[in-house]
Amino acid sequence: MSDNKVQIFDTTLRDGEQVPGCKLNTEQKLVIAEQLDNLGVDIIEAGFPVSSPGDFKSVEEISKLVKNATVCGLTRSVENDIKVAAEALKYAKTPRIHTGIGTSESHIKFKFKSNQDDIIERAVKAVSYAKSFVEDVEFYAEDAGRTDNAYLARVCEAVIKAGATVLNIPDTTGYCLPSEYGAKIKYLKENVKGIDKAILSCHCHNDLGLATANSIEGVINGARQIECTINGIGERAGNTALEEVVMILRQHPHLNLDTNINSEMLYGLSQLVSDNMGIYTQPNKAIVGANAFAHSSGIHQDGVIKNRETYEIIDPKDVGVTESAIVLTARSGRAALAYRAKNVGYELTKLQLDEIYASFLEFADKKKEIDDNDIHKIIESSRLYKEITSA
Amino acid sequence: MSDNKVQIFDTTLRDGEQVPGCKLNTEQKLVIAEQLDNLGVDIIEAGFPVSSPGDFKSVEEISKLVKNATVCGLTRSVENDIKVAAEALKYAKTPRIHTGIGTSESHIKFKFKSNQDDIIERAVKAVSYAKSFVEDVEFYAEDAGRTDNAYLARVCEAVIKAGATVLNIPDTTGYCLPSEYGAKIKYLKENVKGIDKAILSCHCHNDLGLATANSIEGVINGARQIECTINGIGERAGNTALEEVVMILRQHPHLNLDTNINSEMLYGLSQLVSDNMGIYTQPNKAIVGANAFAHSSGIHQDGVIKNRETYEIIDPKDVGVTESAIVLTARSGRAALAYRAKNVGYELTKLQLDEIYASFLEFADKKKEIDDNDIHKIIESSRLYKEITSA
Repeated sequence: MSDNKVQIFDTTLRDGEQVPGCKLNTEQKLVIAEQLDNLGVDIIEAGFPVSSPGDFKSVEEISKLVKNATVCGLTRSVENDIKVAAEALKYAKTPRIHTGIGTSESHIKFKFKSNQDDIIERAVKAVSYAKSFVEDVEFYAEDAGRTDNAYLARVCEAVIKAGATVLNIPDTTGYCLPSEYGAKIKYLKENVKGIDKAILSCHCHNDLGLATANSIEGVINGARQIECTINGIGERAGNTALEEVVMILRQHPHLNLDTNINSEMLYGLSQLVSDNMGIYTQPNKAIVGANAFAHSSGIHQDGVIKNRETYEIIDPKDVGVTESAIVLTARSGRAALAYRAKNVGYELTKLQLDEIYASFLEFADKKKEIDDNDIHKIIESSRLYKEITSA
Repeated sequence: MSDNKVQIFDTTLRDGEQVPGCKLNTEQKLVIAEQLDNLGVDIIEAGFPVSSPGDFKSVEEISKLVKNATVCGLTRSVENDIKVAAEALKYAKTPRIHTGIGTSESHIKFKFKSNQDDIIERAVKAVSYAKSFVEDVEFYAEDAGRTDNAYLARVCEAVIKAGATVLNIPDTTGYCLPSEYGAKIKYLKENVKGIDKAILSCHCHNDLGLATANSIEGVINGARQIECTINGIGERAGNTALEEVVMILRQHPHLNLDTNINSEMLYGLSQLVSDNMGIYTQPNKAIVGANAFAHSSGIHQDGVIKNRETYEIIDPKDVGVTESAIVLTARSGRAALAYRAKNVGYELTKLQLDEIYASFLEFADKKKEIDDNDIHKIIESSRLYKEITSA
């Protein structure tokens, strides 16, 4: 793996699926897994095999199906979890077991009623046991976002020694600021003995709206894997959105970081996941929302018509959206009206445009969105109609 | 204003309303403006008065209604825009005119077919003219995110001299990384003569999912106003979400920055704006989404039942949500099942729980969400039913 390649670890089918009311059946998971493989994700986290018979079966079937990506199964630091995951992954071309344990004070005290040394012991035991089944073992330090950095470094060092190939640093509660999360990754990069033997991974939650920013700060500071989901779906406020981190890296070539993702498939994948889970992205969702490339205000429309790059940094085609939509509303200016009028067949002079624009505004103050029929109506009812030439 | 107070400039009714198909009428805007005033926002941007007669009227009526917040109207750097805005704001207790012009190479070249010196001249002229009507004049340097910092500093210096009280630094295309946007604010704070006479303001767009993070980096680096909208609505991928920046500052007291927002009204405001605009937030929207406080996976549910802070950093009541929901799905564990069973009247022993949990998983693999009726069914059909005591 080259130094500037960021691995995309897709967890749509595991952490993403933890949305109340949105369970996918095995058949749906297989359809999505195949498309994720085509999209170019490096790792597909297919499920949590011990959690239910249905989940076991999904991980097993996905392992048989997937051609390129590593297939990963989640476990707790519990022997039986790990044994069952290894069993579910046995048909995978490149299997990975993802095991781990909570490391923050709150998790150690309230969830495990344990202490720091005992947690390290359990972590090492789990990694060693997983390593007896597969070569590729990822370790998660749950609630790493709220874990003291010095202790976190000790945990990382111990599990690397036990054979962990990837260290997942989850901001489980979505608490970190980007600068804090970046500093945490930097600290581990600089203070963990043997860190070069493992890849640091960002797993961020969106409770404060910062998952994407935190993941990006993570890779800027030395992480080389991002755990994310299509549309940012997941429990509570969800996970890092795959489409956002991929396009941020692509739009900032000076970072010299890129992924293997075929971005032209992003919009299609977004629709596929929405349709299967029955939850839709809001219109203002970045990259894949219905309005992500729609312009309605006059100032913006005028700019886009003159030169797309005035207001758009991403060419919609690059993410699989075929055209940026110009929608007319009472916020639209003369340039947009002239553009749309021309599209439906009228060539307006400056004087005609002034007159038509006044009637357009009156009309648009009453109706939210102006379509082609409305444009015909407005122009035909104008006293200038006879003088207007066709475009 | 104290040094650690961040002003909240709400632009739901101006930049937020630029969503295709979501125009609000004056009556709707008045209802929302009144609630924004109660929420405690410092400035309400009420509209773009010259853009249409409807918008003029809305700004005028909002000016009459609002008791505490400053009321602001948008203009281009065009005399007539400014005159009309002043007219619309004449009933406001504390009016502000928001004028400005594009400053990036792309805007200067393609949109204005102009040059850097001419743009500064037009900016100064606009600010001076606005100043002849009102004391409080905010200047926006459109596309500041892609504007060269040295030139941007020259622009800022010139408009402060002309009387600008607030300098809005918009990342118009949503292009900046948090570290870049923070560095831009820091540069201006350190390099603009007279910067102490004006407040720097963050106006970020969400095209890459970074609006919230950029605004936070902005205030960490010296800005003291954030321009935002309820639910992050707005053109394309929208604006910075008010509820996110407010709760980030509240959740990170070590930053020593806070707002005047009454956070317990956030959820209600979110619903009010959604209902009036007819666009709903996705379930995984941070802070105000339907699932923002819902837990469905077993590991998480177990943790939350033991101690809320294991997985939740915000008390849902603090944002006006009355209870965090425990939803049962095939991802749920024994602890959640026992908790919910108890809620509907069954006290399960460990042995009983093991047995019931197995039937629960079979049931849950078929049905996406398990409600109270299902729990009764599962328990009643168990062969242990007669031994189970009521809670």
